[in-house]
Amino acid sequence: MSGPPPTPGVPPSGDAHAPRTGGPARGARGGLLQRMDKGGLAHVVAVGSGKGGVGKSSVTALLGAELRRRGHTVGILDADITGPSIPKLLGVAGPLLDRGEGIEPATSREGISVVSSQFMVEDEQTPVIWRGPLVTRLITQFFGSVQWGKLDYLLIDMPPGTSDVPLTVFQTIPIDGMVFVLTPQELAALIVKKAMNMARELHVPLLGVVENMASVACPHCGQRFEPFGPSRVGGVAAEYGIPVLGQLPVTPAVSELGDAGRLGEHTSPEVAGLGVAFEKSVQNATKDSMTVL
Amino acid sequence: MSGPPPTPGVPPSGDAHAPRTGGPARGARGGLLQRMDKGGLAHVVAVGSGKGGVGKSSVTALLGAELRRRGHTVGILDADITGPSIPKLLGVAGPLLDRGEGIEPATSREGISVVSSQFMVEDEQTPVIWRGPLVTRLITQFFGSVQWGKLDYLLIDMPPGTSDVPLTVFQTIPIDGMVFVLTPQELAALIVKKAMNMARELHVPLLGVVENMASVACPHCGQRFEPFGPSRVGGVAAEYGIPVLGQLPVTPAVSELGDAGRLGEHTSPEVAGLGVAFEKSVQNATKDSMTVL
Repeated sequence: MSGPPPTPGVPPSGDAHAPRTGGPARGARGGLLQRMDKGGLAHVVAVGSGKGGVGKSSVTALLGAELRRRGHTVGILDADITGPSIPKLLGVAGPLLDRGEGIEPATSREGISVVSSQFMVEDEQTPVIWRGPLVTRLITQFFGSVQWGKLDYLLIDMPPGTSDVPLTVFQTIPIDGMVFVLTPQELAALIVKKAMNMARELHVPLLGVVENMASVACPHCGQRFEPFGPSRVGGVAAEYGIPVLGQLPVTPAVSELGDAGRLGEHTSPEVAGLGVAFEKSVQNATKDSMTVL
Repeated sequence: MSGPPPTPGVPPSGDAHAPRTGGPARGARGGLLQRMDKGGLAHVVAVGSGKGGVGKSSVTALLGAELRRRGHTVGILDADITGPSIPKLLGVAGPLLDRGEGIEPATSREGISVVSSQFMVEDEQTPVIWRGPLVTRLITQFFGSVQWGKLDYLLIDMPPGTSDVPLTVFQTIPIDGMVFVLTPQELAALIVKKAMNMARELHVPLLGVVENMASVACPHCGQRFEPFGPSRVGGVAAEYGIPVLGQLPVTPAVSELGDAGRLGEHTSPEVAGLGVAFEKSVQNATKDSMTVL
């Protein structure tokens, strides 16, 4: 290898373009990337994080279950192809069936429709070893070839990072906006800003931020403390002019229910508050875009 | 979009092949992927996690600094192109210079040579929005076009997941083995197994596992508890027949020093133990491969 490294930051010409509103965008190989139809989906919202391991999938699952409790129909598209977590957290398994009318999603105990790469491997320890173009193809199939039917909310559990999958989602899926999850560490705040800047560059509305693992209660003395340092979510939200949708603590119940595939059963005042704030934020974003039109 | 989704698990023909020992392997576009020379690097070890956010970069930085304290020359190749953490944790900045003899790594206060995509962007919040092929090219440049010089240990901080970057690293960089970091949650254990299975499939020696965030001490009553549930590292290590190299607690000092770019200053009996166990494990792996030859 020789020569200077390619310049990062802005995607090189021909390799990644922001979608043009109302028209097709050019894709990775110069081909046309067409934004797909929303069909029967009232709201499509991506949940991302920048940095992995902040509990983004847990927040997605908790939010989906809360929206169900609030009387809505809900689906989750697990876009974390190489690290799928949703099936394990909600205790839902494949295989995905296609009886001639497209892929049918699996259904969780809470009635959440779920599609995940996890349903396509023999056992839960088999890795999905794919390069970007195949991952990209699967993502578009998970949206366009799945019989989602009519849903009030389709949540897209995004993988960490700012590479192929977010680009593909932003370019081909008609998302209404994106929610970002972070933890109190400065590094998590730093990397979530990269993901938020990417979304902004690609004209995806930022709906709000959720702070996870903000505090923990000592099981011995009952006192609460901040295991990862003081909260930073207020500063991040203010910097981007978006609301804080919730702050969730580290709770043994979340670990235990998640490990048991029953995370959908977890309720708390914090989760209930997240549901209310999320719906309000989606309504605001949708209202705004209708005003613009 | 129509047609059945592609079959995951095993990489499709022509898209990803295990390197053949002593010879070239075919790469993503059917071109030749040549394993590069080790040059002056005595040991090249990848640090990976499967799931992100388990503190893999912190473990890499702590391990690198401990190896320095043990009298070794150390480099860190930050292969987490879209979510680089090492520069922030060790307080080291770019730009990368090339005075005609290849890219010169930056140097941390501890004397660790560091190369990261972070050094190539204007400010630390600019996202690197790249599709796989460009990321792949950068990784091979970070290894092959950088003047690493003579080092006892080059640590490669891997991104989470099992997609392009790990494939590229396994196919083109002559690594001696890989260390895996996980946290106590069952999900983290599950996803680390995927990454470990991928490494195994591609004939990368598994050197051992490190458990991070195993316990935390309450600042009010001083008692220790397991915020993410009971440890699972022993089970994972036994299943793969590899050693547990260390168990690190959640410590305010790690968050604070990491946020301040001074993580290299953190010492503890656990970090010292990790250094000893790591070196032993590398020596065993290298000895074994020499015996085989």
